[in-house]
Parts: sequence; C-alpha cells; structure tokens
Amino acid sequence: MAYINQYTSRLDKLNFKDMFGGDFFLTWEKSFDEILAAFTVADALRWLRENNISTRIFDSGLGVSLFRDNSTRTRFSFASACNLLGLEVQDLDEGKSQIAHGETVRETANMISFMADVIGIRDDMYIGKGNTYMREVARAVREGHIDGNLEQCPTLVNLQCDIDHPTQTMADMNHIIHHFGGIDKLKGKKVAMTWAYSPSYGKPLSVPQGVIGLMTRFGMDVALAHPEGYEVMPEVEETAKKNAALSGGKFSKSNSMKEAFKDADIVYPKSWAPFAAMEKRTDLYGNSNFDGIKALEKDLLAQNVQHKDWECTEDLMKTTKDGKALYLHCLPADISGVSCKEGEVAASVFEHYRVPLYKQASHKPYIIAAMIFLSKIKCPQETLTNMITRNLSRHFS
Amino acid sequence: MAYINQYTSRLDKLNFKDMFGGDFFLTWEKSFDEILAAFTVADALRWLRENNISTRIFDSGLGVSLFRDNSTRTRFSFASACNLLGLEVQDLDEGKSQIAHGETVRETANMISFMADVIGIRDDMYIGKGNTYMREVARAVREGHIDGNLEQCPTLVNLQCDIDHPTQTMADMNHIIHHFGGIDKLKGKKVAMTWAYSPSYGKPLSVPQGVIGLMTRFGMDVALAHPEGYEVMPEVEETAKKNAALSGGKFSKSNSMKEAFKDADIVYPKSWAPFAAMEKRTDLYGNSNFDGIKALEKDLLAQNVQHKDWECTEDLMKTTKDGKALYLHCLPADISGVSCKEGEVAASVFEHYRVPLYKQASHKPYIIAAMIFLSKIKCPQETLTNMITRNLSRHFS
Amino acid sequence: MAYINQYTSRLDKLNFKDMFGGDFFLTWEKSFDEILAAFTVADALRWLRENNISTRIFDSGLGVSLFRDNSTRTRFSFASACNLLGLEVQDLDEGKSQIAHGETVRETANMISFMADVIGIRDDMYIGKGNTYMREVARAVREGHIDGNLEQCPTLVNLQCDIDHPTQTMADMNHIIHHFGGIDKLKGKKVAMTWAYSPSYGKPLSVPQGVIGLMTRFGMDVALAHPEGYEVMPEVEETAKKNAALSGGKFSKSNSMKEAFKDADIVYPKSWAPFAAMEKRTDLYGNSNFDGIKALEKDLLAQNVQHKDWECTEDLMKTTKDGKALYLHCLPADISGVSCKEGEVAASVFEHYRVPLYKQASHKPYIIAAMIFLSKIKCPQETLTNMITRNLSRHFS
Repeated sequence: MAYINQYTSRLDKLNFKDMFGGDFFLTWEKSFDEILAAFTVADALRWLRENNISTRIFDSGLGVSLFRDNSTRTRFSFASACNLLGLEVQDLDEGKSQIAHGETVRETANMISFMADVIGIRDDMYIGKGNTYMREVARAVREGHIDGNLEQCPTLVNLQCDIDHPTQTMADMNHIIHHFGGIDKLKGKKVAMTWAYSPSYGKPLSVPQGVIGLMTRFGMDVALAHPEGYEVMPEVEETAKKNAALSGGKFSKSNSMKEAFKDADIVYPKSWAPFAAMEKRTDLYGNSNFDGIKALEKDLLAQNVQHKDWECTEDLMKTTKDGKALYLHCLPADISGVSCKEGEVAASVFEHYRVPLYKQASHKPYIIAAMIFLSKIKCPQETLTNMITRNLSRHFS
Repeated sequence: MAYINQYTSRLDKLNFKDMFGGDFFLTWEKSFDEILAAFTVADALRWLRENNISTRIFDSGLGVSLFRDNSTRTRFSFASACNLLGLEVQDLDEGKSQIAHGETVRETANMISFMADVIGIRDDMYIGKGNTYMREVARAVREGHIDGNLEQCPTLVNLQCDIDHPTQTMADMNHIIHHFGGIDKLKGKKVAMTWAYSPSYGKPLSVPQGVIGLMTRFGMDVALAHPEGYEVMPEVEETAKKNAALSGGKFSKSNSMKEAFKDADIVYPKSWAPFAAMEKRTDLYGNSNFDGIKALEKDLLAQNVQHKDWECTEDLMKTTKDGKALYLHCLPADISGVSCKEGEVAASVFEHYRVPLYKQASHKPYIIAAMIFLSKIKCPQETLTNMITRNLSRHFS
Repeated sequence: MAYINQYTSRLDKLNFKDMFGGDFFLTWEKSFDEILAAFTVADALRWLRENNISTRIFDSGLGVSLFRDNSTRTRFSFASACNLLGLEVQDLDEGKSQIAHGETVRETANMISFMADVIGIRDDMYIGKGNTYMREVARAVREGHIDGNLEQCPTLVNLQCDIDHPTQTMADMNHIIHHFGGIDKLKGKKVAMTWAYSPSYGKPLSVPQGVIGLMTRFGMDVALAHPEGYEVMPEVEETAKKNAALSGGKFSKSNSMKEAFKDADIVYPKSWAPFAAMEKRTDLYGNSNFDGIKALEKDLLAQNVQHKDWECTEDLMKTTKDGKALYLHCLPADISGVSCKEGEVAASVFEHYRVPLYKQASHKPYIIAAMIFLSKIKCPQETLTNMITRNLSRHFS
C-alpha cells in the first residue's frame, strides 16, 4: 500500500479530469499534466502486475482493434493492454466483414460497439486520411451512446495515424524518463530525431512527427535532421516550435545527421517518406493512377539511394554525448547486413542497444492500458488503491 | 432487486423448461412461451449490464463461431454475447484448419468442442444446406457428450441459415415490442415485409422467411409482397399461415409494394433472391457448372433491374399509418445514392430512421446471450437473482 | 476434497520440481516422474472441470500461438487449455505481422511476450528447422525475462515440430493408460506403430517418432513397421532403443505391417513421409528449387502408390490380440472410401473405433494445460487443493 502511494500522490498533484471519457488522438491535444498522468498510471499498472496484483477493471467487455496496416508489436501491445484490464480483443477484419458492401463508417462503428469499451485503430498509410477516419469513428460511437444504442461509449485510441503515433512516442518518452531518472533530469538534454536510409520506401511519418511533437514539451533540445526533400508536415513543426518555447527547450532543423548527433543525449535515426511525396501518393491512389504510383515509387527509391550515408554508425555514435547517447528505434529497424544490405543502423550499434530497445518497447502495453484506464476511471487514485485492497492475484497459486 | 423482479415474475408465468439443454435453429420450433422467455431474459441481461452488474455465468469456456459468409454485425453480436456470459470466442477458420483434408462434419464438430459451451454457425448460401449442416453439427456434439468425450454439450445457435435468421428476427421483434410498448399493443398492427430492388444478386432468403415465420405469431397482420418470381420457400409460407390463424392475426401475399405499405405500422423492405433461382444455383454449384452459374447470375440481375421501382421512398412512407411506420432493416441496406446508385431505400428515409435502426441492431447481442443463457441455466429466475446478490460489477472502479 | 487427494497423493510420490519454469520440447528430455506428473495433473484438471470447479490460475495474461501449418484440433486444444487456466489466446499470424520486414526471431519473440505466459508453436514442415526455431524463441524470451523486459517468462510448448509431437503422444499415452486401467497394466503390451498408405504426401514424422520415443518408456513392446525407404530419424530410433532397455520393454523394427499387427494390444497405423526425402525437400526449399520440389513430390507419390496394401483392414485387425486391439490415430485419418479412395484405414474399422478415437483426442487440451500448469505452479498439490477451497464454480447458476 505504501508503494502504490508513490503513484497516487503523484496523481494528486496533476489535473487530468478531462481525460475521463475522452479519446487519445494526438499527444499535443493533451495538457502536460495529462501526459504525466498517463506515464504515472502506466508505471502504477506495471508495478501492480510485477507484484502479482490484478489490474482488471472489466469483468466483461470487448476491445476492438482495426489494423489497416501490418503490425506485430502494436497489435500485441493493444491486445496485452486490453487483457490487462479485463477486455477481450476482437479484431475487425475488414476482409471478413460486409464493409465492402457499401456500409458507412458511422454504421460500422456502431455495429461493432454494442459491448466495446475501447476501439484501437491503426491507419497510417494515406496523408489526410487516418486521423480523420479515427475521429469519424469516435464521433459515430459518441452519437450512438447519446442516442442510447450503445450502453457505454468506447474510447478511441490512435494506434498510429498519418500524423502521430502516440502509443509509440509515449512509450519512447517513458523509457527516456526512466533511463535518465525522472522528468526533472531532462532539461537541456539533446534529442536527435534524424532520418536514416532504408532500401524500402513509404514508411509513415508518424514517428518523427510524434517525437518532435512530444519531446519538445520536456525542456529538451530537439534536433530534427533529414536530407532535403524529406520534410515532415509543416503543422507539426509549428507545434514543436511552440512546445519548445513553452517548455524552455529548443527545436531546430538541419540537413545534417552529423550536426544532429553531435553531443546528443538521445538519438532516434529512422527512415520515413517525404511528406510531399506521401501527399502525392495519396492523390494517385485516390485517382487509381497505378502507373503514377509505380513511377513515384521508383523516383522515391532513387531519391533514397542518394542518402545511403544517413546510417547510424559506430563513428557517428562516438560523436554523441560521452559517446554513449541512448539509441532509440520504434522497431523493426533496417539493420545493415542483417535485415538488409545497407540500412538505418550498423549491426554493432543495434546489437549494443538491444536490451534497452526491448525495454523501450516494453512500455507500450502499459501506455495503452493507461490511456484506456484514464478514460474509463473517474478517480484513478481511488481505483488503484482499491486494486490493492480487493486482494486479487493476477497469478493464483 | 425490486427491478429484476419485473423480469423474473414475467418468467414465472412462462413454460420454457425445454429450452434447457436445447439448441436454437428456427423460431417456429419454439413455443410462444419460449420466444417470450428469450425476450425477457434478453431484457434482463441488458438491464443488468446497464446497471453495471456482472452477467458472467462462465468462469472459463469457449464460444466457437463458424462463419461461412462475411459478417460484421452478427460476428460482433455473437462475440459480444459470449463475452457477456464469460465465454471466449474462438473462430473456426476453415481456411486455417485441416477440414479440407477430408475431415467429416461429425469429427470436426467433436474436435473443436472439448471445452465449447456454444457453437454459432452462419451458413446461408445454399438452399437445403445450411440448416442441415447445423443439425448435423448439433447431433454430433450431442453424441460426443453422451459418449463421454465432451464434458459439456455445446448449444448450437443458428446465426443465419438458408431457412431462418432467428437472432436477427428475434432482435427485430424485440425492437418492435419495445417500440410499441409491449406485446399486448401489437394485435392487429400491420407489418409489410416487402422485396426491394438491389443492384446485387443472391441475397439470402432467411430474413423475409424468418420475419413471416415469427411476426405472424403476435396477432399482427403480416403482408408479404414481392414481384412475381421472387417467391420464398413454400413451407415457410405454410408456417406463416398457421401461425396467423393461431394467433388471431393475418398473413397475406401480394405482388404490390404499394398495397403492402398502405396503412402499415411497420415496414421491412429488403432485397432477396428468388427461392427457385437459389435452388438452381445450389444445383449448379453441386455440379461445378460455373458457366451455368454465370448465366444464372446474369439472368437474375436482368430480372432485378425490371423492379427498380421497388424502392422505399418518402412517397411510399407517406402511405403508411399516419405516414410514420416503423422502418426496419437488418443492415447493411442498399441506400440509393449512398451505397449504390439505385437501391432498396431512399437516402432521406434511411437517414430519418438511422437511430431506431441502430437500436434495432442493438438487441441482437442480448438475444443471442438469452438463447445461450436459456440453454445453459436450469432456473433462470434464480440465477438472475443470484447475479444481484453476488455483488459483482461489470466495470470495477 | 477426498477425491482431489487421489491426485495430490500421486504427485507427492513424484519428483518433478524441474518442470517449474521449464519448457516442453521433447518427451524424452523429461524424466519418467515428470511424464507421470503431467498425466496426473491433466487428470486432476479434468476432474475439477467435470465437477464444475474453476481451474483458472490466471486472472489475466496471454497464450500466444503460432501455427506454421494448418491445424484444427491442436489449435482448439491449445485455445482450450489456455482458456481453462485463464489465459486469452492471441494468434501470431505471420501474414498480418511485420516479420517479413527483416525482423529477427529474437526480436519477434520478445515483442509478442510482454504479457504472454505461454507460447505454443507448431512448426513441423522442415527437417532440422521446427524444433530449432522453438528453442530459439524459448532462449530469446528467457533472456528477455532476465534482462527485465518481460515481467514473466513465457513457457514454450511444442505443438508439433519436425522431431516430436509431445502434446499428441502424451494425450495418446494417457488414453492408453485409462483404457488399460493404469500404468502397471501396460508391462509387455504390444504397440504396433506402423506406416499406412495415403494418397497425399509429405506428412510429418513427428507422430511416429514421438510414439516410439514415448511408449518405449512404459515397459511395452513397441514394434515400428514401415515399407523400406520410410525410415524415421535415426536419433529417435536410438532413443527408443535406450528407453526400451531401461523400462524393461522392447523396441523392434520391421518392414511388415502384418508382423507388427500380430497379437498387438494397440495399433497406430498412420502415413508419413520418408525422413531422407523430407531432408531433401528442406534443402530444395532452402535453395528455392521449385522444379526439384515438384519432381520430388511426384517421385514420393509414385513411391507411396507401391504400398497401397499398407491399410488397416478388418482382416488385419483380426490378427491383433483377441482381434480387438485398441486402434489409435492422431486424426484426421485418410479413411478408404470416405475421405479418399484408398487410404490408411478401412471405413468399417474407423467407424468401429470412432468413440475411443474421440476420447483419445479429448485428452489433448488437458495435457497441454498440465504442461503449462507444471511450468507455472511451484506446488501443484497445494494449488489443486486451493482450487477446491476457494469455492469458485466454472459454470455459475
């Protein structure tokens, strides 16, 4: 009981009452207190589980997932989070449904939600589409709840869209907080969010965008670097600038990986597609212009090849703070000589950071669970305490 | 406690003891008391869930689903119902199984059922096949239970077959009962179950058949209307006639949508394929005559096109009782100008009834749960009362 | 309580403490006491379930399954076992994951395991691959647990590999024990593990190998018979010989089905592919030599056809002990005139043994649950007793 107080007393100091009943679309729509509340609840749930205390808040209920792109870790993280709270995952497989038969988003959203407490969506492929779709679903179920057709209103959790990847970057950020020993240790720390070469094309922009949108809120010095032509969404850069100004940090842009890595405390080298090209691709798909798509893909791959030197090498790592910056990646990484001939990161660098990388990933299920928890539980401090007193083990023996 | 008595005292007056241990294939195999018991238990379970009272009757156990046709709402309704009662859904995906390798129905049925408490099957494509298949599965697991290989006997729930769609029509009917304020309010109400134009072909007959087979039992005036050549199964028409005679209602047939809609209290305009054509298609598939199937499909579409005027328009709606009949559809509807150029219903009519349509659909998970509950629970009144006294929340806080 | 003591007192006499925290790869890596402990726990769990006593040991947690080959019964057995213990099954569908994108086994294993208590894998197609892969996964999650990235260490259960099929053969063996009335009744009983003709090709060797590796440990006379050229792995034959020597049983080999069936108490006629051919096929796949694979397949089918007389007929059955040997099959069988023109077993023989065959299969979910239970529970006797005293029903009423 003494230990859980560590978390509840932290929560006592935060204002996060608007998270109750809310969705989670973009980190920059949440107040700083709300972001901290999510980290605190994630840590509390992890502590409870580690101490064999049941964290179920649902006796029955569904967690509906909709993945419009392949996924291993986010899929399992979502399933783990739902399971941790007592929800059964039910995947909406658009191939097996009647959605193709002219069903509207509004209708589908209601039809799957009669007993859904949460809906998690990954829709990251087309610029201007994914986030919009999620909001349409969220609006539909809210209306369904108001109309009395849904007993409960499902919480929407963004499992990656065209703009942000909040469950990833929140997990990344919590990893950083734990690594450096607390939020107060982050002031002035330099983060290099850099592009890196990959032989594949069209990777989503949600991670770099999500990183600059979130990490600028902690007083850190966030350096975004990419080759010319690999710009991210201008709106998100604006958000990053404002965040940095407010938090007493910095946000800078350059076209030099070296410059970004120089004295960095944290490096996040990762491939992505140019925003403008992704916009173009979205239009081409919209017009079913498949020749145009092929031509674009060829151009982009040719463009990528010009930047093979954007690799996270041992030499580059040596230029970071004391030569030992914390290396981050959302995984899977394109590892040179392992998963591809030439890629984002040298095999020896990746290998050196394998254990912290897995630790980074291990925060994701708890972050998702915290997002759901904060939307579903009115007085988290009370409920966390009740979890201790109800005396229910996760693992009976 | 006082409130749950509303349901238990209703059950006290009904004789439904044969539902214990039974399956649910066709509504007309159930006595009127049994049908009413299902509505009552569905309402009781809904009330319990709305009041945050756990309705789990299983601590572990599987609900096996087998969908031989695409499905969104029935799939999620079945999953929701199982989850509500504490069963985990396990989908039998025939593509991932070894069924293709010459396994018999009897064997598969037993192999998936060692811990299955319920099996839900959708098999609606071929006349003379789906219902037969379900009964074969039910017989197999009953034998498996008697032989001692299955500790429990799974309940079979028909999630749509070639003859009936009981989970749909029971949900529809419970919606009607709630809409009009009770079973005693339905006497003499006119129901128009009519064909409607759709640009697709081969839609199952189970809904119109199920509707005339069920709604004729409530003393209502059920008017079936379709163009010539779109007859439903003659046996089901016979059932409807007998039901109407017994219940003091009416069952009529015509080839006029207008006539059916005239002064109707309830309208259910929906496309389906002609029974005779479906029989022919089943034979063609049986003989792998794919040229024959293509030719048939072409003929049927051409036949459909002749009846584009079978659309539920604002003008038609105005001819119903006070111009405001309750519009029903099993969803998804072919909405003119929305999901297709010309379809079953005008966009404005559909939009006007969107909220009640979703309400109609919201009954399905509870109806399925009630079917399972009544098969698994010997004294429902006692168990419903115990659910209150055991003091277990659905949503802990 | 008196009844559960039957099981706990049996466990008291066995030394199986190394099973706690362990995986289950091959039966011959387990001591005889450990094998008996698994049977005892399986029987105890079955007894508890039959008596409506909850056997859940997990309040939350995932059971991850990975099937690299089609499966009905093992898939449902694994799902049933997980569900019985309180774990939710989450299937790792390699088609829906990012594994193709160069992710390593080590990484995937960790990414899916943050809340996994068990991982079940079927990987039986390529000689030298499946078991190796499972061990790689098990090693990866053990490291992940030691590194602190996984709160718990998932137990690995071999759901069929290139070498053994322990969940199948343990179920088979428990069926034999029950059929003959106890382990002490098996001394000297003759088991005919024989090849049988099938019109398909490339069936795994794991069942015959698993059978000779396990059944030789019970003092039985195990006769392996197959046509020339259908040899199993030599290492497993060595294991069988050693087992037989230790247990006071016999292990013999012949090329005669008749000889094997003569006076047999148990017969297990089943098709499999020659080990050498499977090795060759693995190499051809490794080199993407698809013409070579086609040619090999053609050769193998031609080779099979020469041995159509290896069928389990009524006449052959008459030559067994008193003409009524116990017929076993892992199912689905290739039944002559039913699932194929000519196959492994005559329809009348199969039909005669249908009920015991289903009983044989019914042991599998409990065997898998016992394997998990023994890896997760430190003092099984205590936990089984606690299951009685905690007074929790599987099926509430």
